[in-house]
Amino acid sequence: MQSIRTSELVSPAASDSGSHSPSSSDVASSPFRRRSLCSIDQPGVVMTKLPQELEDAHHEIGSKLVVVMVGLPARGKSYIVKKLRRYLMWLQYETKVFNVGNRRRIASKGDNEDGSKHSHAFFDPQNKTAKSIRDDLAMDSLEELIAWLKQGGRVGIHDATNSTRERRKLIMKRLESEPNCRVLFIESICTDPVVLAHNISMKLSSPDYQGMNARVASEDFRKRLENYEKAYQTLGEEEEEEGTPYCKLVNVGKKVIAYNIQGYLAGQCIFYLMNFNLSPRCIWLSRHGESLDNIVGKIGGDAPLSPRGCRFAACLARFIQHEREEHSERVQMEQRAGLYAPSTNISERTMAVWTSMLTRTKETVEDFDANEYDIKHMRLLNEIYAGMCEELTYTEIRQRYPQEFEARRVNKLYYRYPGMGGESYVDVIQRLNPLIVELERIKSSLLIVTHRVVLRILLAYLMDIDRRQMPEMEVQLHTVYRVEPRPHGTILKVFRWDEDRDWFYEDSVTPFP
Amino acid sequence: MQSIRTSELVSPAASDSGSHSPSSSDVASSPFRRRSLCSIDQPGVVMTKLPQELEDAHHEIGSKLVVVMVGLPARGKSYIVKKLRRYLMWLQYETKVFNVGNRRRIASKGDNEDGSKHSHAFFDPQNKTAKSIRDDLAMDSLEELIAWLKQGGRVGIHDATNSTRERRKLIMKRLESEPNCRVLFIESICTDPVVLAHNISMKLSSPDYQGMNARVASEDFRKRLENYEKAYQTLGEEEEEEGTPYCKLVNVGKKVIAYNIQGYLAGQCIFYLMNFNLSPRCIWLSRHGESLDNIVGKIGGDAPLSPRGCRFAACLARFIQHEREEHSERVQMEQRAGLYAPSTNISERTMAVWTSMLTRTKETVEDFDANEYDIKHMRLLNEIYAGMCEELTYTEIRQRYPQEFEARRVNKLYYRYPGMGGESYVDVIQRLNPLIVELERIKSSLLIVTHRVVLRILLAYLMDIDRRQMPEMEVQLHTVYRVEPRPHGTILKVFRWDEDRDWFYEDSVTPFP
Repeated sequence: MQSIRTSELVSPAASDSGSHSPSSSDVASSPFRRRSLCSIDQPGVVMTKLPQELEDAHHEIGSKLVVVMVGLPARGKSYIVKKLRRYLMWLQYETKVFNVGNRRRIASKGDNEDGSKHSHAFFDPQNKTAKSIRDDLAMDSLEELIAWLKQGGRVGIHDATNSTRERRKLIMKRLESEPNCRVLFIESICTDPVVLAHNISMKLSSPDYQGMNARVASEDFRKRLENYEKAYQTLGEEEEEEGTPYCKLVNVGKKVIAYNIQGYLAGQCIFYLMNFNLSPRCIWLSRHGESLDNIVGKIGGDAPLSPRGCRFAACLARFIQHEREEHSERVQMEQRAGLYAPSTNISERTMAVWTSMLTRTKETVEDFDANEYDIKHMRLLNEIYAGMCEELTYTEIRQRYPQEFEARRVNKLYYRYPGMGGESYVDVIQRLNPLIVELERIKSSLLIVTHRVVLRILLAYLMDIDRRQMPEMEVQLHTVYRVEPRPHGTILKVFRWDEDRDWFYEDSVTPFP
Repeated sequence: MQSIRTSELVSPAASDSGSHSPSSSDVASSPFRRRSLCSIDQPGVVMTKLPQELEDAHHEIGSKLVVVMVGLPARGKSYIVKKLRRYLMWLQYETKVFNVGNRRRIASKGDNEDGSKHSHAFFDPQNKTAKSIRDDLAMDSLEELIAWLKQGGRVGIHDATNSTRERRKLIMKRLESEPNCRVLFIESICTDPVVLAHNISMKLSSPDYQGMNARVASEDFRKRLENYEKAYQTLGEEEEEEGTPYCKLVNVGKKVIAYNIQGYLAGQCIFYLMNFNLSPRCIWLSRHGESLDNIVGKIGGDAPLSPRGCRFAACLARFIQHEREEHSERVQMEQRAGLYAPSTNISERTMAVWTSMLTRTKETVEDFDANEYDIKHMRLLNEIYAGMCEELTYTEIRQRYPQEFEARRVNKLYYRYPGMGGESYVDVIQRLNPLIVELERIKSSLLIVTHRVVLRILLAYLMDIDRRQMPEMEVQLHTVYRVEPRPHGTILKVFRWDEDRDWFYEDSVTPFP
């Protein structure tokens, strides 16, 4: 329709494309270097005009970011790394984690059966051979990371303890020869004894201790920690003298120290990391009840609920009240069992209910008591705006705009509806970005009532669903998704409305294979 | 048109309304207290559903924030306070600064003509009488701030040195009895000798030293600083033990320490403060060149430029190149004069050019060389979406939708265009929020080519223009606004295109009285 859109239909460089991997000398001599250090960059949403020669070469724009983790074992590094990767991938930045521990375990397989590379002696700073092997492993990981960035990756995360200045200097030195890479050190510090004890107990179920007696494992891990602690140097003055950008996270966002942060992407990462918490809670998500437009198959619009949709709405209010009470009891039980710090009192919190500004979602929460729930309606949760295709059926779109229909089929993620204001999936992702940060920030449980495309996008974030699968996710009407983030994974349950019994039943079939 | 909109047309509580000032006991006993602590809150954009009794009482929702500044004199507190106030007001949160220094100067008028309350002796921590007077002044300011919040204000900023733990404890104790107030301490630390020397020289032109000999003034200020330094206690361990939320800013965003930040608004403040810098630069803003729709007076749409618009575009590229060179020379001259740290090298930076995704702005920058400028097109800068009124003239809107025309006239800021996706000024403000943070973050100069409403909103932010005036600002076609942020104020120049001479001339008339 409009020529504006076509140039954005390029999908982001895939990690497996490998078709354009400029060597570092290419990069240094091209205008690429100077250009790449500039400002705001949102894949598919902000479009950069390139000089002809770069356009022709299919050069990538936007700088690369290397995130280097720092921290003692069991300080939540992997938790942070996982969340950060998930968030960045959802924002459509190709992100990959390079874990040095896994490399060590793979490297040690075969060459010594006694597992000496897992025992605490391997982590003794006095053990020079072991130290040199550990440095080699870390630098090999870094090389792999750099090679991957050159093949089209955007953010590489070096997941290791990197606990000495010497090691960090090695890493910085290597990265200085890559003109197109920004770096961000992220240190995770945990001083909360409850969280620490829990992290350590999780560690003992790691592959390093498989098949080992629990007491022996615990003793070995304690000694490994001691060895790390002997040599541990926190981020600070030396990094500041050298101007190295870093961020220290103390007790999961409770305290954050950010130094010399550079670049749009690093700023986004830190804002995200600043805002999360470990409160036990649930997030329920649902589409609105059936609307009059749903019955005739029209997309978009602002129709009210059908009588059936109204019955769903009434049942939803009762069901969520029931779920909420059950969740509160479960958390209290787990608190007594020592799983959470006892100070966390969830029952006193007002639960949040968020809907879009459209009639069908607002009507869906009409039976919720505004004294019991903090109910907010917001434009951010509105359905994807279909521009010229608003209030048409898919059959009508295919008939009237066959080329649009085909373009959408080919690349549903980047396809932007024609007409003023028309949106694409990636436009909606950017629109929802502040909401994701807010969802991570608040401690209360939360119900989100929204629309098909927005629900897919939110579930893709929460459940770490691949971008290729996201636009194809089956999300039916009258279904509630319950997402429970736990320190080491997210539990999804699906509840479907049984219209005859006017109650919900749990669907045991995995919804997004 | 749609019932959704009407309930949002409430304007934010004005500072001078005074019609509902619940006493603190009212607040504690009402559901207000529990509710107010919840999540995302964007005036006019996120709508909270209230229980009937609160709706009837015209109760305000959303918690109040008290920002308490901490820092030695000449550390940039007032600069931070000014920017923060401007940003929050632009986001439509009623914000007011309560400056203790001004109160001291007013208080001392009359009761002693010798100006003893300005001389360094007044700031000696050993001087008990003076200390007690200073505490009283600070606490009086705080009372005034609290009273103002109760009358409908949202964010009160207590602008004083607040440099001792004792003082801060007094403040915290007073605020604890206000259930609806969150608090955020912000400390500004400056260790850069160039910035510090510059700040001190600015201080000597303050009212405290009016008419005083320069050497005497400088000596007095040095002694005042020494007195403060004697008693100065930075934010840290004690605040952390008590869980007091704080943020330390070292050298304007170079290093940021955030502790226990609570609430949506405080998080937004910190993200904003983290992202600014003092690089010398210019921001040029312009609407697109005349479009074919401009000729016939249609709003919205995606028309290309008229031949006249194309001539403007060609001239704009030459003019900006000229302006850019001139600015670069001026900065170099000022650097030699010691006004900026010599390390700041602006000439090597690629200048950014941002436009919307619409044809008329993209065509307006077509003559810019993509090798010389980092050119980005983004949806964030698109014109306000007029929904059902897109591609109509104002006359047509008045004829077809007289009620809409009237509603818009009455409250242009909150008026949302009818029809799916229709936007209001406040919707556009929220959409532009990430762009403002990015604009503050980048160090390079910047040209923004956008549309009438977006230009008004951006200029209102940059020039601190009142929300009532913003929707009425006269922003003509073929005019370039040059905004130059300086440490102590922003300089605006207006250049108009002279079509015959095909060049720009400076318009000396103040554009926004």
